[in-house]
Amino acid sequence: ANNFFLLAGPCAIESEEMALRIAEKVVSITDALQIPYVFKGSFKKANRSRIDSFTGIGDEKALKILKKVSKTFQVPTVTDIHEVSDAAMAAEYVDILQIPAFLVRQTDLVVAAANTGKVVNLKKGQFMSPESMQHAVKKVTDSGNDQVMITDRGTMFGYQDMIVDFRGIPTMKQYAPTVLDVTHSLQQPNQSVGVTGGRPEMIGTIARAGIATGVDGLFIETHFDPANAKSDGANMLDLNRLEKLLTDLVAIRKTINQL
Amino acid sequence: ANNFFLLAGPCAIESEEMALRIAEKVVSITDALQIPYVFKGSFKKANRSRIDSFTGIGDEKALKILKKVSKTFQVPTVTDIHEVSDAAMAAEYVDILQIPAFLVRQTDLVVAAANTGKVVNLKKGQFMSPESMQHAVKKVTDSGNDQVMITDRGTMFGYQDMIVDFRGIPTMKQYAPTVLDVTHSLQQPNQSVGVTGGRPEMIGTIARAGIATGVDGLFIETHFDPANAKSDGANMLDLNRLEKLLTDLVAIRKTINQL
Amino acid sequence: ANNFFLLAGPCAIESEEMALRIAEKVVSITDALQIPYVFKGSFKKANRSRIDSFTGIGDEKALKILKKVSKTFQVPTVTDIHEVSDAAMAAEYVDILQIPAFLVRQTDLVVAAANTGKVVNLKKGQFMSPESMQHAVKKVTDSGNDQVMITDRGTMFGYQDMIVDFRGIPTMKQYAPTVLDVTHSLQQPNQSVGVTGGRPEMIGTIARAGIATGVDGLFIETHFDPANAKSDGANMLDLNRLEKLLTDLVAIRKTINQL
Amino acid sequence: ANNFFLLAGPCAIESEEMALRIAEKVVSITDALQIPYVFKGSFKKANRSRIDSFTGIGDEKALKILKKVSKTFQVPTVTDIHEVSDAAMAAEYVDILQIPAFLVRQTDLVVAAANTGKVVNLKKGQFMSPESMQHAVKKVTDSGNDQVMITDRGTMFGYQDMIVDFRGIPTMKQYAPTVLDVTHSLQQPNQSVGVTGGRPEMIGTIARAGIATGVDGLFIETHFDPANAKSDGANMLDLNRLEKLLTDLVAIRKTINQL
Repeated sequence: ANNFFLLAGPCAIESEEMALRIAEKVVSITDALQIPYVFKGSFKKANRSRIDSFTGIGDEKALKILKKVSKTFQVPTVTDIHEVSDAAMAAEYVDILQIPAFLVRQTDLVVAAANTGKVVNLKKGQFMSPESMQHAVKKVTDSGNDQVMITDRGTMFGYQDMIVDFRGIPTMKQYAPTVLDVTHSLQQPNQSVGVTGGRPEMIGTIARAGIATGVDGLFIETHFDPANAKSDGANMLDLNRLEKLLTDLVAIRKTINQL
Repeated sequence: ANNFFLLAGPCAIESEEMALRIAEKVVSITDALQIPYVFKGSFKKANRSRIDSFTGIGDEKALKILKKVSKTFQVPTVTDIHEVSDAAMAAEYVDILQIPAFLVRQTDLVVAAANTGKVVNLKKGQFMSPESMQHAVKKVTDSGNDQVMITDRGTMFGYQDMIVDFRGIPTMKQYAPTVLDVTHSLQQPNQSVGVTGGRPEMIGTIARAGIATGVDGLFIETHFDPANAKSDGANMLDLNRLEKLLTDLVAIRKTINQL
Repeated sequence: ANNFFLLAGPCAIESEEMALRIAEKVVSITDALQIPYVFKGSFKKANRSRIDSFTGIGDEKALKILKKVSKTFQVPTVTDIHEVSDAAMAAEYVDILQIPAFLVRQTDLVVAAANTGKVVNLKKGQFMSPESMQHAVKKVTDSGNDQVMITDRGTMFGYQDMIVDFRGIPTMKQYAPTVLDVTHSLQQPNQSVGVTGGRPEMIGTIARAGIATGVDGLFIETHFDPANAKSDGANMLDLNRLEKLLTDLVAIRKTINQL
Repeated sequence: ANNFFLLAGPCAIESEEMALRIAEKVVSITDALQIPYVFKGSFKKANRSRIDSFTGIGDEKALKILKKVSKTFQVPTVTDIHEVSDAAMAAEYVDILQIPAFLVRQTDLVVAAANTGKVVNLKKGQFMSPESMQHAVKKVTDSGNDQVMITDRGTMFGYQDMIVDFRGIPTMKQYAPTVLDVTHSLQQPNQSVGVTGGRPEMIGTIARAGIATGVDGLFIETHFDPANAKSDGANMLDLNRLEKLLTDLVAIRKTINQL
């Protein structure tokens, strides 16, 4: 009843067993809290800092796991695409195609996603203003697809830090439903070891600010064992802490809805 | 009952009549909402962009008005100081001495404020990290004064914008009670006309995020007629909108207190 | 004789006639100044802000024009690629494959470029530190291709400005020959109209600083009629001003070489 | 003959012997290179991060040393002031009054400096755009003093880094002679230990870029033993490296003058 929705899951699909276990847990929590839930998993990671970073278990294998999660738990799914040819392929398996932040200025990719007729989730580039996202949204709607949403994953602040500009939430809601990615907006990029760092202790802080400023949804990467996740472990939420986090956020949302 | 407190008033003291009218209105609102209230007014403005900007009605005259507001409404008052010699003078009239953001690295000034025994409110420099405020706090406590608080007024983001880093709220609360200045953190400095701009329509957004992330207090400049205020009009809250804003924030605070 | 080299041309290939005219002019200037010259032209522009921006005259048609320029004037050519499949296609026509700044974190794309055996020109992401470019360079060399260079096109500074960090020049030269893109580093992105702005009057300033700090090459977009160029007109150098600019820079370079 | 000028010396005046030794060395170098020289030394340091940082040997004692340096070597001197009352006091001993970057928005201080009739050197705030310095300059000239110059000491870039925006050099030269402070523009503030860090290996890089872009002067803190200087050691130039640095810069300047 006018709750926020949640995009959550592991960063990358590591195995079917892992995906199903995470989905089962998140479904049980979100069902109880009446949070509409979309399972999130990347079928490949194309933008790692280092060539030896984990990039996936195989495209089709990962996409089939996403489909299985969807059927098993009756939840929609979202995955990110990196090339024009990924759009049609991924559209056969998932409900939402996500354009990564680095790629949101690639017109061909955005249009290819729009042309599948699936929902398109545009991540705000770390280098983009909230206002400039209206042009990205327009590329989707001009392609005849009105199902578009925006996800804020923070903005570059110096070389080694990111910051969330909460003025951007009401701004971007003028263009499309707006999601706050609490995982990636806490990244600390360009660290000297070539692996992105983070501040996961701030997840609750950023998520509360997001709900208080009216986001339509939250994006959270979560894992039973963040320290051993094959990518983005630095900012993942331990799955055992998800229920408490969401319970608190639902309480804030209810208050906000009454103002 | 564990509510946030409020530092509010006009930017500069323009006249006794204006100060008393504003105070009366804010007192009536905050009394009803059980918000501890501190009347704020600058007795001079020393850091305007242009030499022809308004700088005040006379130091002693303005300080006496602050004192009168305090006695009339039984509320504490806060004013900002700019030179070492201001500290002792202002301390005779007000309860809290505020160190402006540009001046928070001036050790002599901070120590002079601390030595008055009054509460010291340290504004975070626009050029400082939340973590670095611990050194400013320590200058006060090392002077034997434990009554110190921090106010965040945003951080430079490029030349012509500011941003509030909400990760800084829990960080700075480790050092001292932390206030969010919703007026100045919405400034847009370095505008070509030499007068700082702003985005007052974002006051509610930033204030909500502040309460949600646990600030101890809010700082709001307010005026019956922001467009004709003699300084900082760009981001002032119209006093007629204060009650609704605070009512909403109290509701969020109550929810946060229960989590 | 230990001079800097030059990558220059129009932004996008608009027509064969235009490409040949520009090349002829630049060749005559660079021959006289003993500046090694690489003709630059994009065969498509995939990352425009707005869907109605110019995106090209047709991939193969544009690539054939690049080849014709190369044969006509005996100069190498460079073009940028946006998808993995572009790499092999473009490699048949040009000598240097350029990875756009937004895409330099796309491992698959960088590796595909490296695998062609052509020189790879990695643009530093606007969101990357100079130090982090070592990981991008390593993706090329780990693919068995040692012909790699880096081009700095500025770093995000707030939402609507970019800045060149000249500390990055000696830093990146440790990893690969380093080029300064004086055209794009003067961009002012996220302007409200959805078209990137610029400060072309600063081309000489930035180029002189680049030569003084030891860049190996310069990247300049130039056009006989910048105001009517189909893309990036905002920061293009008027071709009639190129000779004077390069003459001055060669003089500075000669001095630097003797220090 | 149309050379750049140099403001150089230790950060703080530590002792008469130290000041005279440094001045003697710099005078001998700058005389040979025909560089107009101004001896620089702070008589107190009021803006340290930590209360236990070195703040000086006593105001009058330090100012008298500056006077002695001036008489001994027939060179003008510059020192920075922090409060209105410093202006008249320092003006009795030195030729140029410098407004620290943090304080350049303090109108009273700028006007007090202007009213002494001495040359006023305005440091650009780390939080200010080059364009906004015209307002600071105007405060001096509106006070009837036309002897004003600007010194760029870098601009905040994220929390822990600074950057020099060389587009600012021609911009600020429109308002007043412009100096590049190569020492402080290499600071890395807000470091976790409460002591500002730096990158002194970049002094040559930044200085060359400054000369190439047309600065009127350079500001360099230098010491025989930077590691043991009582303040700002992180970015000081070892005095034994000054001659080579300046010799190279004079060569670049001569070339620039001929363009």
